Amino acid sequence: MALSGALRPGLLQLRVLDLQAAKTQYIDRIGLQFVGEDGDGRIYLKAYDEFERHCLVPREADEAGCDFMAFRVASAADLDSFEKRVSDYGYGVDHVPAGEQPGVGRRIGFMLPSGHRIELHADIDMAVRHPPATNPDIWDEEPRGMGAIRLDHALLYGPNIDEVQDFFEKALDFRCAEKVALPDGMLATWLTCGTKAHDIAFVRHTEPGKFHHASFYLEDWSAVGHAADLIARYNISLDIGPTRHGITRGTTIYFFDPSGNRNEVFSGGYTYYPTDPTRIWNEQELGKGIFYYEKAMNERFLTVVT
Amino acid sequence: MALSGALRPGLLQLRVLDLQAAKTQYIDRIGLQFVGEDGDGRIYLKAYDEFERHCLVPREADEAGCDFMAFRVASAADLDSFEKRVSDYGYGVDHVPAGEQPGVGRRIGFMLPSGHRIELHADIDMAVRHPPATNPDIWDEEPRGMGAIRLDHALLYGPNIDEVQDFFEKALDFRCAEKVALPDGMLATWLTCGTKAHDIAFVRHTEPGKFHHASFYLEDWSAVGHAADLIARYNISLDIGPTRHGITRGTTIYFFDPSGNRNEVFSGGYTYYPTDPTRIWNEQELGKGIFYYEKAMNERFLTVVT
Amino acid sequence: MALSGALRPGLLQLRVLDLQAAKTQYIDRIGLQFVGEDGDGRIYLKAYDEFERHCLVPREADEAGCDFMAFRVASAADLDSFEKRVSDYGYGVDHVPAGEQPGVGRRIGFMLPSGHRIELHADIDMAVRHPPATNPDIWDEEPRGMGAIRLDHALLYGPNIDEVQDFFEKALDFRCAEKVALPDGMLATWLTCGTKAHDIAFVRHTEPGKFHHASFYLEDWSAVGHAADLIARYNISLDIGPTRHGITRGTTIYFFDPSGNRNEVFSGGYTYYPTDPTRIWNEQELGKGIFYYEKAMNERFLTVVT
Amino acid sequence: MALSGALRPGLLQLRVLDLQAAKTQYIDRIGLQFVGEDGDGRIYLKAYDEFERHCLVPREADEAGCDFMAFRVASAADLDSFEKRVSDYGYGVDHVPAGEQPGVGRRIGFMLPSGHRIELHADIDMAVRHPPATNPDIWDEEPRGMGAIRLDHALLYGPNIDEVQDFFEKALDFRCAEKVALPDGMLATWLTCGTKAHDIAFVRHTEPGKFHHASFYLEDWSAVGHAADLIARYNISLDIGPTRHGITRGTTIYFFDPSGNRNEVFSGGYTYYPTDPTRIWNEQELGKGIFYYEKAMNERFLTVVT
Repeated sequence: MALSGALRPGLLQLRVLDLQAAKTQYIDRIGLQFVGEDGDGRIYLKAYDEFERHCLVPREADEAGCDFMAFRVASAADLDSFEKRVSDYGYGVDHVPAGEQPGVGRRIGFMLPSGHRIELHADIDMAVRHPPATNPDIWDEEPRGMGAIRLDHALLYGPNIDEVQDFFEKALDFRCAEKVALPDGMLATWLTCGTKAHDIAFVRHTEPGKFHHASFYLEDWSAVGHAADLIARYNISLDIGPTRHGITRGTTIYFFDPSGNRNEVFSGGYTYYPTDPTRIWNEQELGKGIFYYEKAMNERFLTVVT
Repeated sequence: MALSGALRPGLLQLRVLDLQAAKTQYIDRIGLQFVGEDGDGRIYLKAYDEFERHCLVPREADEAGCDFMAFRVASAADLDSFEKRVSDYGYGVDHVPAGEQPGVGRRIGFMLPSGHRIELHADIDMAVRHPPATNPDIWDEEPRGMGAIRLDHALLYGPNIDEVQDFFEKALDFRCAEKVALPDGMLATWLTCGTKAHDIAFVRHTEPGKFHHASFYLEDWSAVGHAADLIARYNISLDIGPTRHGITRGTTIYFFDPSGNRNEVFSGGYTYYPTDPTRIWNEQELGKGIFYYEKAMNERFLTVVT
Repeated sequence: MALSGALRPGLLQLRVLDLQAAKTQYIDRIGLQFVGEDGDGRIYLKAYDEFERHCLVPREADEAGCDFMAFRVASAADLDSFEKRVSDYGYGVDHVPAGEQPGVGRRIGFMLPSGHRIELHADIDMAVRHPPATNPDIWDEEPRGMGAIRLDHALLYGPNIDEVQDFFEKALDFRCAEKVALPDGMLATWLTCGTKAHDIAFVRHTEPGKFHHASFYLEDWSAVGHAADLIARYNISLDIGPTRHGITRGTTIYFFDPSGNRNEVFSGGYTYYPTDPTRIWNEQELGKGIFYYEKAMNERFLTVVT
Repeated sequence: MALSGALRPGLLQLRVLDLQAAKTQYIDRIGLQFVGEDGDGRIYLKAYDEFERHCLVPREADEAGCDFMAFRVASAADLDSFEKRVSDYGYGVDHVPAGEQPGVGRRIGFMLPSGHRIELHADIDMAVRHPPATNPDIWDEEPRGMGAIRLDHALLYGPNIDEVQDFFEKALDFRCAEKVALPDGMLATWLTCGTKAHDIAFVRHTEPGKFHHASFYLEDWSAVGHAADLIARYNISLDIGPTRHGITRGTTIYFFDPSGNRNEVFSGGYTYYPTDPTRIWNEQELGKGIFYYEKAMNERFLTVVT
């Protein structure tokens, strides 16, 4: 494949009520590495297996939620091309100068009709503690806690997700790996820019701009079980799991950070190829799609967002 | 990413001495599904999680080895484009008509300077027993044996692998995820057309056209352990493992089919992004690169090829 | 240790509404082996890793539930000794002649004040398909379905469990590995005759003689996940899981057979030594004790028994 | 079962050349907890899931090896009874006063004809950091490194192992779970005092008093894989693995401490009941018995002892 265009979720700026509590959650429990903090209330974190300087940026705020999600694109030319395509699609594009986050090059940003801000950037410094690349050991520093491998995807709640899907497909070359088709329209869509089952997903919701969860990738089902042990042992607020999704087929556990933002750690899921059909779920089997074992959603999973 | 061009290894035609013995190995043990056989001594097999009609084609012959490996490309336009780019690179391209393998569209083929035949095709029928796509269960038929998920990659031995790498990069848009750099030149290269650590790999070898192994993807380290149990229980000839590669970081076990062709089943391995550096191995750490636990190669792994 | 006295749960005779449906559940899904059936509506099943002829005896009946649970004791002398000790404790002992179940020697039986029938036997034929004992492979026949290794324990609901515990300790040399102490008395007790965290357990319940679940041992957490997949894929009625118990620390999943009898498959749990303290749970932490991840019981788990 | 007599391996005093290096191996890598050190060159370590004060006692010495292995017995009465039975068997018994190791009660000791010192003790303090026993979490302190759960068994090399087996069976109530029968006599025997496949094992060897390995129990095959990663990453000297034994069926990895003492971490293995037959291995299948996957021993495994 020509590995161009949007590569992967690169940055997620998250609003938290208490930075210290966020450090415990994301560093000690989920296992991210601390990269640094600037003076303006943001901390910079990365997963041990990512080359990029940072991926998660908790920012102290009065209200939990997600400021924006940014995708890394393969080149500056791709960034320019996407700017034009996003504008052509009809969305206003603004510019974030290089250095607004330390080590990150210029970004472009735009609002989705679901009320979410998406950004794109081509340049970010390589992390000081990047995965070894010469005679590489499997890791340099022993992973801690849940051992998160990478920031994987986010799920966002808001209106107009049919248009959102159309936009991601037409302007950003994403594909729809799965979707939920209800009699009154699409309830949810899982969009991928690569061969993962999803890099971002949207659920239809009346209130715009809501954040459902950020997800981190783990090695396997054993690691999901270990995460469950840590969640229980450290009295982290559990949402649901360990379980499996029918949709994406990932094995998963959901929990909350101390500010009420939902986190997921998961493993597995199929490999998606663009020659694969979009998987379709309908109303009567939806419970199985969301939670394959329970075959029903919990109310909290549908309604609690930040 | 724009998911165009070469997508994944799609077909591997393998010479075996005894079709019946090959069925036991690839169906009962590795866990492929039997798709069909034509009258000319070939059988068609697929992994349970592949949408394509078949991926592995054992062919009865007097000598073991690999006839060719074919990559599926995203579209007929890509196939035409690659035909021109391969020709422009200087390699002669021949045509295999649609239907030469049942359900497979027209293919183009060419010889590498390593002595291997590579093919490309855009069209192949969807399997009758394809993964469910409407309210999909995790699988339809209970996976058997080792539970192979997909044909993943092959490793080939031959001369001129510097040129081979250059060709894959320039004509087919592959990238080099890892390589072994010896004082006298490159010993080996791992090439990817997507985000896997490798879709095909080459090791420098004087004799051209040799086949080292075909590899099938498993769920996780537990599945690798289960594969080891099956190999031992059924007296399948073991090469090495369960172990881990430093290169690609996959957890793995190697064994032979009854004709002497080497098989691998593996799991894990990192996700490769084109913004990642190529991982480089040098002479003194090469043992660790090949077998991360043993830190040394066995002679058989280096010399026994078909 | 002097391995004398009660060794392990040996027989469980279960009432089912439909023998054919029970075969699907216990053989195809849980993975027991079919041993045989006699003409009187009973089938005999065993786990692949048990030496004894059979362990589970589904019997067709109008109502689900458990007829009795039998412990195998180490010798005929132990059987005689226990007969005297049970009588001395004040319980009436009856005799079941050898051959009442095919291949099983004479049994003694008695009623607990919880309303459950317990039996003891010293002799049972070695299974035809017993685990190999000369140059043994890890198994002879490839385990199927969930791959149950052995019948492990049962949980029973009924009144007077303080006396039941006293009886098991004094008359049968069991020990209490864990118990739940509520302000109004003991709610539950986990009793072991060896080094497992439990061989039998009791929960206080007004109605006597009720059956909560029979449990089968699996290899590990990966096997519990595989069991969850099978339960979901084959639409077996799930109770709860995969999860972990605080009590016994086992990782587990609960589900129902087609007659409504609850089954458990689980793995792990600590090793109990008689020098270990009894673990005590009190009211406020009981949820964590039952389901360590959810930290709360579901109503069904407390009330649905057969 | 009447849980009396010898319960489990309780103490292993090991000679190491460098205490500091031993700390790194046994605490940081294998994951034992540091309990304390006295002034006489010994350190006291325990596994996180053991109630006893300590289990492993590395002692600085000029030569590696094992000073003695001690079994904990259930009561002082058992200790007295065993003293008489050992004497009656014809072995001289000496006494080690309470407090010779801090927190350990009086011990009795004797020499086996294989040249190994075995001890028995009934009393040892409960560890300060013992597993929680009131509303217990799965662990109190997050396990580190390989996460060793308990000291499990040792394998010793020496002459006269037929007599050693006879002694363990007759004087200490152990049972032989497996043995290797060669044309010229027994090569090896696996002896259990409970329901584990072995608590101690002996291999025939001309030189008396040799130590092959001490083994620590891990959760499962995933934990064995994680141990392999740590061994490789920290350049610990690997012997063999990850692999599986045919004998005991445990999944395992062997490596050396910095003094040359062999360590094992393993998981699984069957549950042994005294009604099970002793498993017998003969010469032609012995390789499979030792290493089930490789079906052959490495020379080092047979000859390198301390």
